[in-house]
Amino acid sequence: MALRRLLGLAAAVGRRGCCAKRPLPPDFVEALTAVAGAPNVSTAAAVREQHGRDESMHSCAPPDAVVWPQDVAQVQELAALCYRCDVPMVPFGTGTGLEGGVNAVQGGVCFDLSRMDRISELRVEDFTVAVEPGVTRKALNSYLRASGLWFPVDPGADASLCGMAATGASGTNAVRYGTMKANVLNLRVVLPDGRLLHTAGPGRHFRKSAAGYDLTSLFVGSEGTLGFLTRATLRLHPVPEAVVAAVSAFPSVRAAVDCTVNVLQAAVPVARIEFLDEVMADACSRYSGLGLPAAATLFLELHGSRHSLAEQVRQTEELAQLHGGSGFAWAQEPEERSRLWAARHAAWYAALALRPGCKGYSTDVCVPISRLPDIVVETKRDLEESGLTGPLVGHVGDGNFHCILVFDPEDPDETRRVKDFTDRLGRRALAMDGTCTGEHGVGLGKRALLREEVGDEGLATMRHIKAALDPKNLMNPGKVL
Amino acid sequence: MALRRLLGLAAAVGRRGCCAKRPLPPDFVEALTAVAGAPNVSTAAAVREQHGRDESMHSCAPPDAVVWPQDVAQVQELAALCYRCDVPMVPFGTGTGLEGGVNAVQGGVCFDLSRMDRISELRVEDFTVAVEPGVTRKALNSYLRASGLWFPVDPGADASLCGMAATGASGTNAVRYGTMKANVLNLRVVLPDGRLLHTAGPGRHFRKSAAGYDLTSLFVGSEGTLGFLTRATLRLHPVPEAVVAAVSAFPSVRAAVDCTVNVLQAAVPVARIEFLDEVMADACSRYSGLGLPAAATLFLELHGSRHSLAEQVRQTEELAQLHGGSGFAWAQEPEERSRLWAARHAAWYAALALRPGCKGYSTDVCVPISRLPDIVVETKRDLEESGLTGPLVGHVGDGNFHCILVFDPEDPDETRRVKDFTDRLGRRALAMDGTCTGEHGVGLGKRALLREEVGDEGLATMRHIKAALDPKNLMNPGKVL
Repeated sequence: MALRRLLGLAAAVGRRGCCAKRPLPPDFVEALTAVAGAPNVSTAAAVREQHGRDESMHSCAPPDAVVWPQDVAQVQELAALCYRCDVPMVPFGTGTGLEGGVNAVQGGVCFDLSRMDRISELRVEDFTVAVEPGVTRKALNSYLRASGLWFPVDPGADASLCGMAATGASGTNAVRYGTMKANVLNLRVVLPDGRLLHTAGPGRHFRKSAAGYDLTSLFVGSEGTLGFLTRATLRLHPVPEAVVAAVSAFPSVRAAVDCTVNVLQAAVPVARIEFLDEVMADACSRYSGLGLPAAATLFLELHGSRHSLAEQVRQTEELAQLHGGSGFAWAQEPEERSRLWAARHAAWYAALALRPGCKGYSTDVCVPISRLPDIVVETKRDLEESGLTGPLVGHVGDGNFHCILVFDPEDPDETRRVKDFTDRLGRRALAMDGTCTGEHGVGLGKRALLREEVGDEGLATMRHIKAALDPKNLMNPGKVL
Repeated sequence: MALRRLLGLAAAVGRRGCCAKRPLPPDFVEALTAVAGAPNVSTAAAVREQHGRDESMHSCAPPDAVVWPQDVAQVQELAALCYRCDVPMVPFGTGTGLEGGVNAVQGGVCFDLSRMDRISELRVEDFTVAVEPGVTRKALNSYLRASGLWFPVDPGADASLCGMAATGASGTNAVRYGTMKANVLNLRVVLPDGRLLHTAGPGRHFRKSAAGYDLTSLFVGSEGTLGFLTRATLRLHPVPEAVVAAVSAFPSVRAAVDCTVNVLQAAVPVARIEFLDEVMADACSRYSGLGLPAAATLFLELHGSRHSLAEQVRQTEELAQLHGGSGFAWAQEPEERSRLWAARHAAWYAALALRPGCKGYSTDVCVPISRLPDIVVETKRDLEESGLTGPLVGHVGDGNFHCILVFDPEDPDETRRVKDFTDRLGRRALAMDGTCTGEHGVGLGKRALLREEVGDEGLATMRHIKAALDPKNLMNPGKVL
C-alpha cells in the first residue's frame, strides 16, 4: 500500500537519468520525509559532508540528502522511491571504510543505517546470532559476554558488522577464524528496487547448504553495489579458555616469514600472527613505550585450553629460535596482552607520528605467502628510491600486508609519488600471483587494478551480474566496476 | 582462429531452439569430431546410457553424444560450437552425484572431462595445488603423500574434485575443515559460449581477497549450470601428527546430539563426528562385523599433535560420560581406524543389505544443530507410520543427516510413499529453519523445495544470474532452477 502511494508520488516527481550527478527531483526530500519522518532526513551541509567520506584520502563527495531508516520496511520504501525516480543510493554504516565506499560520487541519497541496531536470535547451541547494520563488532562482543561465545573478525576499527560484510573485511584473527566470507551465514538484503531478499531463505541459520547459487557470498564484499545489507546472521565461536600473546624480533623479513610458514605447516592453530618491518616496530615501540628493537618483528597470539597452550607455546618458540627469533616474553594476563595489542593496533597512529601534520594512506595487497619476503624487500627498496615514508605491517599468515604511507597531501609532487608508488605496489602483487586488495576492497581507488587482476572476462562477468541485479546502476554507482 | 572456423561450420549446421529435446543438427557429430578427434567422440547407445545417469534413482536421460576433451582449449572450442548451434551441454566427472546432475534431460552433448587429469602447481609453502576435472580426491591425496599436506573434504565416493566443487560437496571432515566452499581458492571456468574465465584472475593463488564480486563462490555449487569447471586451485592442510578414532553408544538421540554440542562449545577441534541411529548402528555393525550395540551412536575422529590429542580425548570422554555415552575404545593404529571408518563409509551398503534386492535413496537435509533431536525423532516416527525402511546417519556437527531409504522401485505404492516421505522431510527441515539439501545439491529432485526454501525473491535472483551468465540456457538445462 505504502509502496504504491509512494510510487504515485514518485511518478509526479518525474524521471531522471542516473549517469551523472544532478540535483534531486523537486519535492523529493519531502517524499523521503513522508516515509522516514522529519527528524530522520537531513540536507544540512555539515551532515552531508560528514556522510560524503570515509577514513580514506578520497575527496569528500557529499550526498544530496541523508536519511536514517528506522527499520527494514522503511529501507524498502525509501529504496523503491529512489529507484522509481532514478536517484542513486549509498549505504552508510560507521564510515570507517578505507576505499571511499561511502563517497556519493554521483550524489543521491545516503542511507545511514546506524539507527537500526538490534541484536536478535542469539542461539548459543547453534553458535549463531543476527545483527542489524547499526551493530558494531565491539557492541556485539559486549552483548555476547555472558554467552561463552564471541565474534572474532577484527579489522581494527569498531566497524558495523553489516559494513564489514559489505566490504568483505578480515583483519588480525583471519588466519585462524577466517574472514567475513567464512563467518556470515546469510543476509537479509533490500534490493535496489525495494524488494526483500533473504540470501538463504527467510529465517535460516544452518551451517552449510547446497541449495542453489551461493547468494550470501555474492553480497559479501559487494561494497553496497548490489543492495542494502539490513541484517546479517553470523557464525560465533567459543571464547578460548586461555590466551597468550608474545613478540619476537627476527634478523630479517625472510626469517620472520619462514618462521610463520613453519608455524602453519606444524598446524599450530595460531590465532594472530602479525608482521612489522623494522620501521614500523620502531615507530610502534616509541609510540606505545614498549621498548622493542628496530627489527623485523612478529606479534603472535595463541588461543586454546590451558593445557594445549603450553604445547603451542613450546612449538612456536622452537620454530622462532630456528629462524633466529629473539626470546619470547609471553603475556598471559589480560592487561599485558591488551598493552601489546594496543601497540599493534595503534600502528596507524604510530606511523602518522613519524611525520606530525601529515596524512596517511594504507595499501592492502595480498600475495601467496611464499612471495611475501620478495614483495616486502622490493617494496622497501621502492619506498627508499621514491623518497617516501611507509612502514609495513601485516597479516603475515594470510600473505596480506599494509604499507602505511605518511605524506603531505598539500605537496603535489609527494602526492604524485605516493599515487605512482601504490600503483606499482598493486602491480607488483599481481605479478606475484596476488591481489591488489586483500581486505579494504576496490571502492574508488582500485578500479583500474581490478581490471588488470581479473581480466576482461572477469570484469565482464561481474558487470553482467551487476546489470542483472541493479539494472539502473543506482546502488552505490561508480564503485568497484 | 579455430573458434572462427568452427563458428563458420556451426552456422552451416543451422540454429535450433533449446527448450525441448531435439535431435542434434545434421553433421554436428562430425563437427565435434573435427575438434576432439575421432576416438574422443561417441554416439554408441551403451556409452550414452552410461553417461545419462549418476548414482541416484532418477531415470536415465542419455545425451545425444559424448565427447572427451583433451585440454581446456578443446573444451572452449566444443562449447563455442554447441553454443552457436543451441545444443545443450552437460559436464560429466565421475558420475558419482546423487541428484541427477549429469542426466541429459534435454539431450545434447555430454562433456566427459575425465581425461583432463593433470595435477599442477603444488606449492607446499602456500598450501595450494591446482587440479583438472579428471583428478579425483583419492588421486590427489596419493599425489600429496610425500608433501606433508592433504586435501580433507571427503564425501565418501572417490569423486572428481571439480565435480565436488560443482556440487558444493562436503562430508565427514567438514565440521573441522569446511566444505568445498572453504577449500576452493579459485576456478578456471569455460563459459557457455567458450570464453575462458579465471574467477580470481589468471594464475592467482592468494588466501584471501576483497577484489570485486566473489565469482569463485558463485560457481562452487552451481551444479554445471553456469559453465565448465576446468581447473580448481585448492587449499591444502597439514597432515595431522596423530589421529585417533572412537565409537560410543548413547541412551538417546538427544543425548548424542547434546554431547556433540558440548564438544563443539568446549572448542575441542573434532575432525569428524558422525551420528548413527540405532537401526543404522545395528546394520553397520552386522555388515562390517564390529559388534556395536543397536543404539544411538557417535563415531568420532580427532586430529592433532600427540600431546594435544591426549587432552582432546580426555575432554571428549568426560562430555560423553556426562550424557550417558558408553566407554570409548580409542583406535590409534591406522588399521584399527580404517576398520572403524570403513564401517561408517559402508553405511550405504549396510542399509541396502537390510532388504536385499532393493534400491537406496539418500536424503540430505541440514538443520540448526539445536533442532537435530526434534527432526530425528519426528522423522523416525514418520518412517514408522509410512512403513518404510530408512536408517539415519549424519554429520551431526553440521546438523546434516541422511535418511537412507531402502525400497523396491518396482512397487509403485512403496515408491510413492518414499517420494511423499522425502517431500515431508524436506519441508520439515525448512520448518525448522534448515535447508532441503546440505550437500547433495538440488539437481533434478529438489527444484520445488528450493523455491519454498529461498522464496520468490531468492529464486528470481538466481534466475537473473543464470540468465546473465547463460542467456541461452544451454548449460546443464533443467537443473537447479
